[in-house]
Amino acid sequence: MLDLIKKKRNGGVHSPDEINEIIDGFVFGHIPDYQVAAWLMAVYFNGLNDQETAYLTDAMMRSGDLIDLSSIPGIKIDKHSTGGVGDKTTLVLGPLVAAAGVPIAKMSGRGLGHTGGTLDKLESIPGFNVDMTAEHFCDLVKKHGIAICSQNSRLVPADKKLYALRDVTGTVDNISLIASSVMSKKLACGADGIVIDLKIGDGAFIKTIEDASKLAEIMLATAKNMGRKLVAVVTDMEEPLGYAIGNSLEVIEAIHTLQGKGPDDLTELCLELGAQMMVLGGKADGAASAKKQLRALLENGKAFEKFVELVKIQGGNIQYALHTGHFKKATYKFEFKATFSGFVKHLNAMEIGLASVKLGAGRETKESAIDHSAGIELIKKVGDTIIEGDVLAVLHCNNEKLFVNALEHMQKAYTFSTEKPEETPLIKTIFA
Amino acid sequence: MLDLIKKKRNGGVHSPDEINEIIDGFVFGHIPDYQVAAWLMAVYFNGLNDQETAYLTDAMMRSGDLIDLSSIPGIKIDKHSTGGVGDKTTLVLGPLVAAAGVPIAKMSGRGLGHTGGTLDKLESIPGFNVDMTAEHFCDLVKKHGIAICSQNSRLVPADKKLYALRDVTGTVDNISLIASSVMSKKLACGADGIVIDLKIGDGAFIKTIEDASKLAEIMLATAKNMGRKLVAVVTDMEEPLGYAIGNSLEVIEAIHTLQGKGPDDLTELCLELGAQMMVLGGKADGAASAKKQLRALLENGKAFEKFVELVKIQGGNIQYALHTGHFKKATYKFEFKATFSGFVKHLNAMEIGLASVKLGAGRETKESAIDHSAGIELIKKVGDTIIEGDVLAVLHCNNEKLFVNALEHMQKAYTFSTEKPEETPLIKTIFA
Repeated sequence: MLDLIKKKRNGGVHSPDEINEIIDGFVFGHIPDYQVAAWLMAVYFNGLNDQETAYLTDAMMRSGDLIDLSSIPGIKIDKHSTGGVGDKTTLVLGPLVAAAGVPIAKMSGRGLGHTGGTLDKLESIPGFNVDMTAEHFCDLVKKHGIAICSQNSRLVPADKKLYALRDVTGTVDNISLIASSVMSKKLACGADGIVIDLKIGDGAFIKTIEDASKLAEIMLATAKNMGRKLVAVVTDMEEPLGYAIGNSLEVIEAIHTLQGKGPDDLTELCLELGAQMMVLGGKADGAASAKKQLRALLENGKAFEKFVELVKIQGGNIQYALHTGHFKKATYKFEFKATFSGFVKHLNAMEIGLASVKLGAGRETKESAIDHSAGIELIKKVGDTIIEGDVLAVLHCNNEKLFVNALEHMQKAYTFSTEKPEETPLIKTIFA
Repeated sequence: MLDLIKKKRNGGVHSPDEINEIIDGFVFGHIPDYQVAAWLMAVYFNGLNDQETAYLTDAMMRSGDLIDLSSIPGIKIDKHSTGGVGDKTTLVLGPLVAAAGVPIAKMSGRGLGHTGGTLDKLESIPGFNVDMTAEHFCDLVKKHGIAICSQNSRLVPADKKLYALRDVTGTVDNISLIASSVMSKKLACGADGIVIDLKIGDGAFIKTIEDASKLAEIMLATAKNMGRKLVAVVTDMEEPLGYAIGNSLEVIEAIHTLQGKGPDDLTELCLELGAQMMVLGGKADGAASAKKQLRALLENGKAFEKFVELVKIQGGNIQYALHTGHFKKATYKFEFKATFSGFVKHLNAMEIGLASVKLGAGRETKESAIDHSAGIELIKKVGDTIIEGDVLAVLHCNNEKLFVNALEHMQKAYTFSTEKPEETPLIKTIFA
């Protein structure tokens, strides 16, 4: 291992065997943490090339269980978001694309920090069960074209261990390490193709288009090296997606979107990502025709029907899907109001995400409990006209004491201007 | 610690408190090895400036016992060699400079790898004792102007622990880390001034004059920042120093040198380093007059008398010093001969050092035993004329089986040419 550390320190390029030696040695405990830490810092400075990133992804992927989706006919397409605030895309996209005939075998995670998790959101529907065997999961996809379950804990143990070490050694921010972490998990889930929603901006861990482009290119090269299809869509995460932040609030907004009456930004994102999934899945010739089909599925009720079917087959109470009034409301509401007349200049997604965590909607640590009804309803977003006293957002909470902490973040989240700010596009660029 | 790793990773400069936090946390086990390993690799890439290096040296120095030499009158000057092959300089320099009136309170180490250690060499004189209390050590220096003892094991524990981690994480080769390691140990020994013999070449861990210059400048800045005097003399270690390699062989050569009949290179080096010590110690106005005084002490027997006094006060049998024929000879000798007529072009000190270890003269690990009579007598050195069949070197050993391993290195050590090679100066440059 000392030779491998020195090789990377001196700008050398690792062979596949060397990468395997490092990952296997680390996972099985033959190589001590301090040597891997030194190697990670050398990687931080000297980088990994595309080939090395692919080897690393492969070695990590093979460190644990691999999901076998081969019993499901058709081209299975997965979608991954690098994480944002108010990002309920999977709840819409899954049923929508499944309704278009692309099999959706989706393994999701839980929320941590300022971002929410698909499983937590789905569990705000009473009875909805996300834990199941791989066989049952595949059976559901075969019969219904969709299933969403929790990630197997034996998936990619190398990533869990490596990420924990990166987190405490200042080696998180390296594009190759980020790419291999994301890709190894997605590839272990067994899909034939992957659409990556690469979020950039205040609410995302990638802040600039340059970093997003580099990450997208490394991911594309990695997928190519490993014989999988990949499309990376770079999208805006300056302000939250849609108007709802918090678990049941987001499910309700997703339902509205599946019924064709969702917010413009969420709808647009789902159509774009959905179109890319359809093209990868061989169900459309191009993105334009795919979008037309998807829009029809939102309007004719088929996408929503698929959602209701999903809730039913996973044990959820479909009355909640059919009548969103059933969702339990939070006990307390607080109207956060404008103290300025003009325009909303900026709305910081990170601060909104942190505010919603303070209200109980998210987890500060892995062990925290989630309050499904807590969260934030945005009333005004960037570019909206406001008059002093207008309600900007409504905070939902079951413990009045929590408002104070959330308000600190709310005050940082909104900034105002006398002139209307320029519009920024939601979809920045697509790498395919 | 994570913030400190990121700070150095991003090219930041540490405050004294931050450096103390890292070193104390590491020594007391509050900061795990893997975080220190990541920090060390960040230091490898982004370096430490002169101030940070001084803080690090200070923090390491204060991690253990500090030797108090204040009871000894006069300006105490220490000498440190960065390590070479055949380097018996301390054995000559100590008595020589003590005879000139500079108090020599010398703490030395043992040999490891291809380099020998002063304590091992002295112990080839029967009865010579290097273990004593600090009080007794100071008393000897007060009464006799010289004492040489083993380094207290409670001296600079931070360096022991940090060096062990650097050794397995590819972070040894950083000039600031090297400087702080050497300086913290020397400064803990309490001298007012230090002369550093910075060896460069095949037999040294520093290979180029550029690296030596950088190291010398950092050491000078560190000493200045810490209020101590320092002179760094950069000297050649391409070929071994003198003709003898191995413990008792080196003691005999040192005795000859103290009697004014030593090899030219060893004598020249001792005069140069000794002159610098005298100037730092306030016993001479300049190097030239100091050298004249020192040469007289070699010629009039005073330097040798001081050596005999040293042997006596530390319990050694002075008959060995007075009649070197008393030293036990190795049972077996092997004459390594020339297979070429021409000149010795190059003589690789590292290979000679390794050959002598194979013969039993050195330690491959810290636990290895030393054979005091084993070693190598060089007959021909760089620039010497040779005729096929000439004896190049004589190998001394107490186990015939060991010759084979040593010969492998001997064959690599000597290279030949038909033309006389250019002479290279022993003293490269002096930083003061």
